[in-house]
Amino acid sequence: MRVLITGAAGMIGRKLTARLVADRKLASKAITALDLHDIVPADRPKLDGAEVKIHTGDLADEGDAAKLVAARPDVVFHLAGVVSGEAEANFEKGYRVNLDGTRMLFEAIRQAGHAPRVVFTSSIAVFGAPFPDVIPDEFHLTPMTSYGTEKMMGEALLADYTRRGFFDGIGIRLPTICVRPGKPNKAASSFFSGIIREPLAGQEAILPVPRTVLHTHASPRSAVNFLIHAAGLDGEKVGPRRNLTMPGVAVTVGGQIESLTRVAGEKFAALIREEPDPTIWAIVQNWPTQFNAKRARELGFRAEDNFDDIVRAHIEDELGGKLPDL
Amino acid sequence: MRVLITGAAGMIGRKLTARLVADRKLASKAITALDLHDIVPADRPKLDGAEVKIHTGDLADEGDAAKLVAARPDVVFHLAGVVSGEAEANFEKGYRVNLDGTRMLFEAIRQAGHAPRVVFTSSIAVFGAPFPDVIPDEFHLTPMTSYGTEKMMGEALLADYTRRGFFDGIGIRLPTICVRPGKPNKAASSFFSGIIREPLAGQEAILPVPRTVLHTHASPRSAVNFLIHAAGLDGEKVGPRRNLTMPGVAVTVGGQIESLTRVAGEKFAALIREEPDPTIWAIVQNWPTQFNAKRARELGFRAEDNFDDIVRAHIEDELGGKLPDL
Repeated sequence: MRVLITGAAGMIGRKLTARLVADRKLASKAITALDLHDIVPADRPKLDGAEVKIHTGDLADEGDAAKLVAARPDVVFHLAGVVSGEAEANFEKGYRVNLDGTRMLFEAIRQAGHAPRVVFTSSIAVFGAPFPDVIPDEFHLTPMTSYGTEKMMGEALLADYTRRGFFDGIGIRLPTICVRPGKPNKAASSFFSGIIREPLAGQEAILPVPRTVLHTHASPRSAVNFLIHAAGLDGEKVGPRRNLTMPGVAVTVGGQIESLTRVAGEKFAALIREEPDPTIWAIVQNWPTQFNAKRARELGFRAEDNFDDIVRAHIEDELGGKLPDL
Repeated sequence: MRVLITGAAGMIGRKLTARLVADRKLASKAITALDLHDIVPADRPKLDGAEVKIHTGDLADEGDAAKLVAARPDVVFHLAGVVSGEAEANFEKGYRVNLDGTRMLFEAIRQAGHAPRVVFTSSIAVFGAPFPDVIPDEFHLTPMTSYGTEKMMGEALLADYTRRGFFDGIGIRLPTICVRPGKPNKAASSFFSGIIREPLAGQEAILPVPRTVLHTHASPRSAVNFLIHAAGLDGEKVGPRRNLTMPGVAVTVGGQIESLTRVAGEKFAALIREEPDPTIWAIVQNWPTQFNAKRARELGFRAEDNFDDIVRAHIEDELGGKLPDL
């Protein structure tokens, strides 16, 4: 089994690579070759008995994707993309990377002709306000960002290329990934991770919105589980609607802080400082809060059951299971 | 007011051109220039005091759209496209014309920077089965053809380019246009027009499906009315959801035949021969039947109230108001 990952140097790409290297198999088959593609070189993992290739390039460049799929990967994880904030700030770059890059990859796969499984990371940004309390699987797509528009177009292509038999695609709409490792960034959603990650590193975190704000999260570990599960799904069972909203934990910000207190202790939660930011609140109020994700659950996708487990996953996966002394 | 029509040599393009020439104005402003674009030269209409230019080219060719919008049209009617059957039979051509052509035109308008009104003809092919009895405006888009996928992607671009302020777009989802003038074609929907058009020309028509089949129609005259109305709409009133399902007349095939009998007489309806075709019926059963079209109606879009008026419109517009002697 040959596996290709685009966006392999990104946060999810690195975690997926580590998981594949640990499992040494995917969809019950031994991994014999691993192609890791990104615009910068991904770290080269050790995978005994398997060929590992590091590819650098831009999928939107003519010929880049064709070179990549020439070895006929059995499973393609297409994670490459620029994030929401960047796609909004740089219109041309967003369409080039998120739409053209995706289309060039899909076209290269069509022309290779071997119809592999393709797993594509979409986003709940395909949805736009106003929302019902719980968004059903059949909710219409009216994105309010260029990023969401590009993901919606990628989903449409994925469904049509699958219907045509050019490949066997699964699109997974990720909820907010929390706790995101690394530094805070300028994304309006940054605080959802920050209020857990910074205290657990012994640092102060700013909470810019009221504790009543409700949002849906899945851990990086769950995101990787979604990808692995999607790779092994029976396409017949999925049917023609190939883009699935993933499950997650719906919790208020207050509930996140209660989880932090339960799992780590009051001292850590005390590092959160409330500093209301009307601009961030205005943005967050236009975001979806909860998803039904019925189809994904029926197809066996699993996320955490509660936010305590998300906090624990972060401590285990990023902090070696240990909390700092405060 | 400068007006550009793409797909100007097509059936709707020719009728829209004739209407603009008759009105000499659009959205209450005198038409001073008319650009007619298609891959074949459109007929040159006479429009006194106005500059009329015939353009031939392929919007998906580099530079074609830029040349076309250099004169900064105030209203762009983007009708160009290949039809459903052709887009399904020729995958590459469908994406090239319907997606790339649309995107190249939208990009050229963005780069021209004058933010005109853009009216884009989408289609009810953006919807996919299973359907509720009446499809609401908020129904999700799960097209089951490449044509529907391409129109869905055009709609997504239109909404995002409008949100960004690059132009002021209105997408109109046309129902089946009936009675289509001209010859029968190989489209599965051909009989909806054929069972009216052929008898009114004194010729036999084949009915391949049961009389109970329910479908929604608008006359070519209504399609032109939709386009004209969209050109003059207040974008603020439309809001961010720029793609509107147009109203139409929902009627069974039996109801169509009753209208033909009422308007023209039994002798004409007797020219319809029932010849069941299981293949056509299977296709038609996956088509949407009725639309709510609430938003479009509230925004002032009007179609016929009943199918009798659609038969009358055909006799007036295509047969000079006269029926043949049988």
